[in-house]
Amino acid sequence: MSNLNSPDSNVGHQEVTSAAEADTINTRHQRRMQRKKALMDEKIDQAQRATGVLLVHTGNGKGKSSSAFGMVMRALGHGMKVGVVQFIKGAMSTGEEIFLRRFPDEVQFHAMGEGYTWETQNRERDIEKATLAWEQGKKFLNDPSIGLVVFDELNIALKYHYLDINTVIADLDARPEMQHVVVTGRGALPELIAIADTVTEMQVVKHAFKDGIVAQAGVEW
Amino acid sequence: MSNLNSPDSNVGHQEVTSAAEADTINTRHQRRMQRKKALMDEKIDQAQRATGVLLVHTGNGKGKSSSAFGMVMRALGHGMKVGVVQFIKGAMSTGEEIFLRRFPDEVQFHAMGEGYTWETQNRERDIEKATLAWEQGKKFLNDPSIGLVVFDELNIALKYHYLDINTVIADLDARPEMQHVVVTGRGALPELIAIADTVTEMQVVKHAFKDGIVAQAGVEW
Repeated sequence: MSNLNSPDSNVGHQEVTSAAEADTINTRHQRRMQRKKALMDEKIDQAQRATGVLLVHTGNGKGKSSSAFGMVMRALGHGMKVGVVQFIKGAMSTGEEIFLRRFPDEVQFHAMGEGYTWETQNRERDIEKATLAWEQGKKFLNDPSIGLVVFDELNIALKYHYLDINTVIADLDARPEMQHVVVTGRGALPELIAIADTVTEMQVVKHAFKDGIVAQAGVEW
Repeated sequence: MSNLNSPDSNVGHQEVTSAAEADTINTRHQRRMQRKKALMDEKIDQAQRATGVLLVHTGNGKGKSSSAFGMVMRALGHGMKVGVVQFIKGAMSTGEEIFLRRFPDEVQFHAMGEGYTWETQNRERDIEKATLAWEQGKKFLNDPSIGLVVFDELNIALKYHYLDINTVIADLDARPEMQHVVVTGRGALPELIAIADTVTEMQVVKHAFKDGIVAQAGVEW
């Protein structure tokens, strides 16, 4: 694909220099990649324990729920069964809900909120709904045939004390050993972060919203 | 569901105080939620422009690719067609690939890398593969029937100069007006961030890897 290294190529001084430079760049790149590979291999060798993990997606940026649903897609690809409970949202019929309801044998989906909290403006009703949603969540946490459980926007329910954090932590701790759980929502409580295995904070660098672009199907919902 | 507000309830002084406190908490909560709703309504009123958006998921944390695949799920739920090009990865058969190949009429999927860059250790071959992958990407960018295009790990290909950022930006700019694009990968170039509508940085708060937990199906791949 390139004759830069061919001794027979009929090139002037300028091109010979370029060829030498290209060689150096390629060699340096190769050495850097070899070091990187050695480091990665070492890390991977050290990480050998397979166990159910608890992941938390928090922060003000976009991608907390969508990342959880990307994991649902991964899990389904690997033949795992999935349970989803959507807290707080739920009144909105989102794209992921429409899609996941096509696979009733693989995904159990429960959207139990009544719109965002600032739509309901009724604390008692929110608590009641969150409690019912957690009852459903506990069924998933008691079912070892479910490989991945998503608690979408649970952090909001915890932040507003709609649910008791200690009860939630106890139920999470009692789940089957190989079951993975993802919790999403802004303002994850420190108690939850403390017991989580992997925590990602989604930070806003910029958002289309601020440029007057409306929330759109396939992007925000 | 509660008789806290009933004047007939036969309760002592302690409970009356609690009832009054609960009332205050509920009222304060309601006022806060009303203010929040007013603010949200105002923002939503201002954001009215519907247009294809360019999203970038970057940072060292988990969730960049999975969030893009969550958006694929949303888009499919809304009946949109989707194009996916996976740069750099590709040799690994991931859960999302296995899953998305079940929907050949809705999703065109192209995984064109040969494993992570530190696996190939050959810069020329990486450039060749990335160029081929971008050719496929351009076909998606020229097809108005595709509502969402995912360029998974494109940032890596740009960071290592496997592709020219100016060519990529020109091709992105020339896409159909209503088409959404998501680009993922660490180290997004400033030129790409400058033209993006929504940029999220996924930051590591903690990662199971460091506790010796291996990368697992349904979680990392």
